[in-house]
Amino acid sequence: MPNKVKVAILGATGAVGQRFVQLLEGHPWFEVTALTGSDRTVGGTYGDGVRWVLPGSVPEYVRDLPVLPTAPGFDAQLAFSALPTDVAKEAEPALAAAGVAICSNASSHRMWPDVPLLIPEVNPDHTGLIAAQRRSRGWTGFIVTNPNCTSTGVTIALRALHNAFGVEKGVLVSMQAVSGAGYPGVASLDTLDNVVPYIGGEEEKFAAEPCKMLGTLNGDSTAVDFLPAVFSTHTNRVPVLDGHLVVVSLGLTRAASPEAAAAALTAFEAPAVVQGLPSTPARVIEVRTEPDRPQPRRDRDTGKGMTTVVGRIRPDPLFTLRMAILSHNTIRGAAGGAILNGELLVRQGFLG
Amino acid sequence: MPNKVKVAILGATGAVGQRFVQLLEGHPWFEVTALTGSDRTVGGTYGDGVRWVLPGSVPEYVRDLPVLPTAPGFDAQLAFSALPTDVAKEAEPALAAAGVAICSNASSHRMWPDVPLLIPEVNPDHTGLIAAQRRSRGWTGFIVTNPNCTSTGVTIALRALHNAFGVEKGVLVSMQAVSGAGYPGVASLDTLDNVVPYIGGEEEKFAAEPCKMLGTLNGDSTAVDFLPAVFSTHTNRVPVLDGHLVVVSLGLTRAASPEAAAAALTAFEAPAVVQGLPSTPARVIEVRTEPDRPQPRRDRDTGKGMTTVVGRIRPDPLFTLRMAILSHNTIRGAAGGAILNGELLVRQGFLG
Amino acid sequence: MPNKVKVAILGATGAVGQRFVQLLEGHPWFEVTALTGSDRTVGGTYGDGVRWVLPGSVPEYVRDLPVLPTAPGFDAQLAFSALPTDVAKEAEPALAAAGVAICSNASSHRMWPDVPLLIPEVNPDHTGLIAAQRRSRGWTGFIVTNPNCTSTGVTIALRALHNAFGVEKGVLVSMQAVSGAGYPGVASLDTLDNVVPYIGGEEEKFAAEPCKMLGTLNGDSTAVDFLPAVFSTHTNRVPVLDGHLVVVSLGLTRAASPEAAAAALTAFEAPAVVQGLPSTPARVIEVRTEPDRPQPRRDRDTGKGMTTVVGRIRPDPLFTLRMAILSHNTIRGAAGGAILNGELLVRQGFLG
Amino acid sequence: MPNKVKVAILGATGAVGQRFVQLLEGHPWFEVTALTGSDRTVGGTYGDGVRWVLPGSVPEYVRDLPVLPTAPGFDAQLAFSALPTDVAKEAEPALAAAGVAICSNASSHRMWPDVPLLIPEVNPDHTGLIAAQRRSRGWTGFIVTNPNCTSTGVTIALRALHNAFGVEKGVLVSMQAVSGAGYPGVASLDTLDNVVPYIGGEEEKFAAEPCKMLGTLNGDSTAVDFLPAVFSTHTNRVPVLDGHLVVVSLGLTRAASPEAAAAALTAFEAPAVVQGLPSTPARVIEVRTEPDRPQPRRDRDTGKGMTTVVGRIRPDPLFTLRMAILSHNTIRGAAGGAILNGELLVRQGFLG
Repeated sequence: MPNKVKVAILGATGAVGQRFVQLLEGHPWFEVTALTGSDRTVGGTYGDGVRWVLPGSVPEYVRDLPVLPTAPGFDAQLAFSALPTDVAKEAEPALAAAGVAICSNASSHRMWPDVPLLIPEVNPDHTGLIAAQRRSRGWTGFIVTNPNCTSTGVTIALRALHNAFGVEKGVLVSMQAVSGAGYPGVASLDTLDNVVPYIGGEEEKFAAEPCKMLGTLNGDSTAVDFLPAVFSTHTNRVPVLDGHLVVVSLGLTRAASPEAAAAALTAFEAPAVVQGLPSTPARVIEVRTEPDRPQPRRDRDTGKGMTTVVGRIRPDPLFTLRMAILSHNTIRGAAGGAILNGELLVRQGFLG
Repeated sequence: MPNKVKVAILGATGAVGQRFVQLLEGHPWFEVTALTGSDRTVGGTYGDGVRWVLPGSVPEYVRDLPVLPTAPGFDAQLAFSALPTDVAKEAEPALAAAGVAICSNASSHRMWPDVPLLIPEVNPDHTGLIAAQRRSRGWTGFIVTNPNCTSTGVTIALRALHNAFGVEKGVLVSMQAVSGAGYPGVASLDTLDNVVPYIGGEEEKFAAEPCKMLGTLNGDSTAVDFLPAVFSTHTNRVPVLDGHLVVVSLGLTRAASPEAAAAALTAFEAPAVVQGLPSTPARVIEVRTEPDRPQPRRDRDTGKGMTTVVGRIRPDPLFTLRMAILSHNTIRGAAGGAILNGELLVRQGFLG
Repeated sequence: MPNKVKVAILGATGAVGQRFVQLLEGHPWFEVTALTGSDRTVGGTYGDGVRWVLPGSVPEYVRDLPVLPTAPGFDAQLAFSALPTDVAKEAEPALAAAGVAICSNASSHRMWPDVPLLIPEVNPDHTGLIAAQRRSRGWTGFIVTNPNCTSTGVTIALRALHNAFGVEKGVLVSMQAVSGAGYPGVASLDTLDNVVPYIGGEEEKFAAEPCKMLGTLNGDSTAVDFLPAVFSTHTNRVPVLDGHLVVVSLGLTRAASPEAAAAALTAFEAPAVVQGLPSTPARVIEVRTEPDRPQPRRDRDTGKGMTTVVGRIRPDPLFTLRMAILSHNTIRGAAGGAILNGELLVRQGFLG
Repeated sequence: MPNKVKVAILGATGAVGQRFVQLLEGHPWFEVTALTGSDRTVGGTYGDGVRWVLPGSVPEYVRDLPVLPTAPGFDAQLAFSALPTDVAKEAEPALAAAGVAICSNASSHRMWPDVPLLIPEVNPDHTGLIAAQRRSRGWTGFIVTNPNCTSTGVTIALRALHNAFGVEKGVLVSMQAVSGAGYPGVASLDTLDNVVPYIGGEEEKFAAEPCKMLGTLNGDSTAVDFLPAVFSTHTNRVPVLDGHLVVVSLGLTRAASPEAAAAALTAFEAPAVVQGLPSTPARVIEVRTEPDRPQPRRDRDTGKGMTTVVGRIRPDPLFTLRMAILSHNTIRGAAGGAILNGELLVRQGFLG
C-alpha cells in the first residue's frame, strides 16, 4: 500500500483516544494526520495536552501534532472516533456530512437503523447499509460503529455458536474492567475491595447490540432485521484494569455438547473478506480447556488483545450450555475493533 | 441465662475458626471452654499456635487456652466446627457418637439425608431430623450443618420470595470474596487485577443446597423432600476481602413486580422461634433502592454481618425478576450462621 | 453534660464531612445543628444532596437536615471544617470573625503563626495562641487546626520519643491510603496494580508540621518556636483504603535501644487535661511486637481508629532507630482528630 | 552464532523458572536443552508438571521436554538457576564441581567471597573472581550470581551516581511487588487493601549487596573490597504485581544538583564489553521528569523490563538528593538479569 490512508483520531486525548494513538503507531495502511480534542487542549500540541495514562510514554510520532477542534476541516479521509456520547451526537453527523468516513466507538448512533454496528468477523456485509445511509441523509461521508466493549466478545462467540446451533436466549453476566469507564473514570474508593453491580445504560446495550449484529440485512439494504433472541443481562464493575469477563447460560436451538461447542468455536474463521487484514487476529476465538480460564489478566492479551477467549464450556441444567467469555475491552472492544472496521472499509472499497 | 453452655471450637486456628473466636467473645449464652487444632498446634496455647489473620489481635479470653486434639474428651456440650472437609469427615461423626452436639461449617455431611442443613430464618423445623439421625446412627450427640457461604444469602432471599411467589428456577452468578478460601487461600498473583471464574466444587453445592433448605421435612421426619427448583450456577472469585455478591435471574411461579418483590423481602421476618436469639439480626433482609447497591465493602456489615442485603430488583426479560444479593461470607455464611444455629438448638431444647 | 454544644459541619457532603457526620452520631457533648455544603447541594436536605461513600447508609439523624451555605448565620457555636483548602481560605476567617469557634481539617491556616496546629496528646498548651489570634485579628471566634493526615500519627510517636530521647532528624516515607484524597479522589487506573510516588504538596507539609507541633509557645503566647529538627520526607499513594503507614529512620539526641523506645512509646500518656475526653483513646500509642506489623488493614481500627500503632522498632545503621508507624487517616488524621480538638477546647473553657 | 550454547533451567516450574522459560524463547545465543524440577514433577513433561502463572500459555518449545532432577547429568554447559535457597545451597556446588557454569538467582552463594555478584552494567570485571573460585574449590564449572530483585535497580542507579559524585550513605525504602515472593507466595488476605512492612531477610540483603557490587576486585582477584557505604533499609510488600519501587534519600561525596544527577543517570552507558549483548537494554537508565513517575505498572516494562527508571530527583534536606527508582523485579531483578549475566560470560569467553 504505497499511499497510506490519512486518518484522524477524534477525542484523541481521552483513554480510548490514547489506545487509538498507541495501536495506530506504525500501522501499515493508516497514517495519523489529525488529532482532535476538547477546548482545553485545542491549540497546543498533543504532547502538551494529553495526560497519558497507558504504560510508557506518549509515542514520538504524535507528540508534536497540534490538537484540532472536532469539526470539519482537517486533512483526513477516515476518522476514528473516541468522542464522548454527547459530543459524538453532534460532531459525527457534521463530519459525515462534510465527507469524512467515521469509525465510531461512541454509542450515539449504534442503533440508528441505517448505521452499521460492525464486527468484521461477525457481520461484514452490514456495511451494505452505507449506501442507504448516504442517500437518505445526503452525506458524502458516513458513520460506521463498533459495539459496546461488553457486547463485542460475546457477540463473536455467539456468531460461531449461532452458525452451528442457533442462539435463542441467554443470561449474560459481565465482570468489567475499570478501563471501560475511561480516565479518571471509576474512583478507587469504589473499586478497592469492592464490586459495583451497576454500570449506567450498559445492560440495555448489552441485551440489544448482539441482536442487531447477529441480524440480517433486509431486502433493500436499508436496515437490519434483528435476531429475535432474548438476553437477560447483568453488568458489574470489578477491580480489574483491562479485560471484560462474561459468564453465560445459553439456550441454543439445537442440542450441543460442550465438545461440539468447543469444536465450533475453535473452527470459527473470519469471512474471506476479513482474512489477512492488518488487525485480524490469527485466531478469532481461542478455547481454553483448563478449569479456571479465561482470566482477565492472563488471557486478555491473546492475539494482541484481538482474540476472544472462551473457556469453562459445560452443560447447563436450565438451557443448553454454560461458558465464560473474555475480550480485551479497550483493544478488541474499542480502539482495536474500530481500526479493524476501518481496515474492512478499505478492503471493501469504501475509501477512495 | 445463669449457666452458659460450654462450647468448643473445632479447627480454631484457621480463618473460620478465628471468626468463631471473635464472634463468641462475650457471647451471652456460650462460654468457650475448648479449642482444637492440628498436630502442629496441639499442646501449646492458642495464642502461640494461631497466626491471627483478622484485624487487631487474638482476643485475651482465648490467648492462654490450650489447643486440644480434635477428638472426644474435651469439656463442652456443643462444638462449632471449622474443620477442613477431610478432617470433618472422620472427626465429626466420632464426636457426635461421643455425645457432642455439633454445628458444623464443613460441607462433609450437609447432604446426608438425616443431617439438617440449617438456616434458622429459613427452615428451623429441619432440626426435626435430629431424632432420626440419633436413632439410626446410635449417637448421643448429633450433627447440624450450615450451608456453603454462597448459598446462604441467596437461600434467605429465596425463602422470602418462595413464600410469596414460588421459586421455580434461576441463573445464579456469584462474585466471591477471597476470605471464603481461608488462609493462606487464594494467592495474590491470582487475584490482583484478575477474576478467576472457577471455585472447585462450589457450583454444585450452590445449585443443590438451596433446594434442600427450601424443601420440606417428610412425614416421619427422616429426610427432606427437596424443592424441585433448577438452578444454573456460576461461581467466580473476585479481589474482595469479605462479602459474596450474587446476581440472579429468577423464574417465579406467580407474577411479581419489582415493587411486590421488594415488599415481600422487606416484610420477611424470622419465624417466632428464631426471634430474639442473640445472633438473629434486627432485619433478616434489607432492600436497598439505590441503583448501584448492594456492594460488598459498603454493605457486608449490615446487621453486624448477619443481614442479607438485596438490591437492583428489576424485571427480567427471560424469567420473572433480576436482582443482586449480598451476604457476609465469613459471618452470616460461616461462623455467625453456625452460632445462630447453636442458639436455635438451645432454644429448641436440644442442649440439655 | 446536660446542654450539648451545638456544632456545625462545614463541607459536610464530602468524604471527610461524612466522617464527621458518622463520628458525631450520638456524641455525648456535641449536637449537630447545622450542615453546610456547596452551591449544588444548598437548599435541599443532606440526605438528598450527599453521595454517601462510607459503608452503610446516611445516618438517620442528619438525613432531613437542610444543607446551608458556608457562611455566618447558622445556629452553632463550634464548627468542624471539612472544607476544601481554597474554600476554607475565605470562609473560615469570615466565620471566626462572626464568632464561630472552628476546628479545621483544612491546611489553609495551619501555618499561620497565631493558629494552633493541635493534637491534644502532643501540644494541648498551644491553644494558648487563641487569645493573641483573637486580639490581633479582632475576632470573637477563632480557628484551631489539626495537622495533615500523614503528620498526625508520626507526630504522636515523635512526641513520646522526643520526651524520652530528643528528636533531631529523620527520613520519613509514607505509604498513604486513597481515602486521603477524598471522593472521587484517586482514579482506579492510578491505583490498581500500582503505586504513585507523589502527592501534591504533601512532602512539604509532612516535613514542617511536626516541627510546629513539637515546638514551644513563645514567651507572650503569640507564636510557636519550632523544634529545629530536619526531616527528609517521601510521600507515596498505595492501593489501600484507609490507614497511612510511615516507615522512618530517626536520629535521636540520646542513645535509645529498641526496647527503651518501645517502653517510652508504650508508657506515653495523654496529658491530664486530655484524659477522659470522649474521643481520647484508651491507649495513645500501641506497640506491636510481631515482625510484620503494623499493617494498614489489620491495625488501623485500633482504639476506634484513634490509637497510633508502632512496630518493627530496630536499630538504624545511619541514625538511631528504624520503625513503622500507622495511623487511621480519616479518623485520627482528620475528622476524629478535629473532634478531639473540639473536646479539648470545651474542657479548656474556650466554648462558653 | 551458528552453534547455540546449550542451557538448562534449574527449578524451571516455579515462578522465576517460568520467567526464564519465557525470556529464553527464541534467544539468539541460547538453546534450552534441559529443565529441572522437584520430585513431584520429575519424570513427566514440563507441560504436565508446570502450573503456568504468567499470562498466556506454556510456550510450545518446552511443552514436551522432560523434567529432570536437579543433579549432574543433563546436556547443557550453562545453567540458569531459579532454585529455592535451600535447594541451591547443595545443588549448585555439586553442579559446578561437575563442570556446569551456573548463573544463579538464588541468594545462597551471593556473599561467598569468591563468587561474583554480578550486574553487567555495574561490575563486569567481577567475573575475574571465577579463576580463583575454580582454583580453590577444584571446580571445572563455576557459580555466578545476580543480586536480590530489590538491590538490582538501586545498584544500577547508584553505579551512575557513584561514578559521578561518590555514594556514601542512604536511606532506601522499597515498595515491592508480590511476584517477588513466587507462587503461591503472598496470600490475598495479606495484600488486598494492605501493606506488609516486612519481608524476611530482605533488608539485610538490600543493605549489603550494593556494597559488594560497587566494590573493587582486590589485587589478586580473590575477593571484592566492599564499598564502605552505609544504607538504612526498609522493605515493604505492596499490592502490585510486578515492579519494585524504591525511594531513597542519598548522601553523596560531592555536591550534586538534581539536574546534574539526572544528566549523570541519563548519560550512564553500559561498559563496552556489555554493549550489544542480546539482553542489554538500549538505555540502561531512563530518567522521567513528570512529577509522579516512575510508577510500577506504567514504567516496569521500559526497555522490555531491563531498563532502570528513575524520577522525582530533588534536593534532600538531610543528605544530598532524594529520588525514586523502579526496576522490574522478575525480569531485570531475576531471570532477565541472570540471562544477561550468561551473555556476558559468553562474550568474556568463559563458555568454551
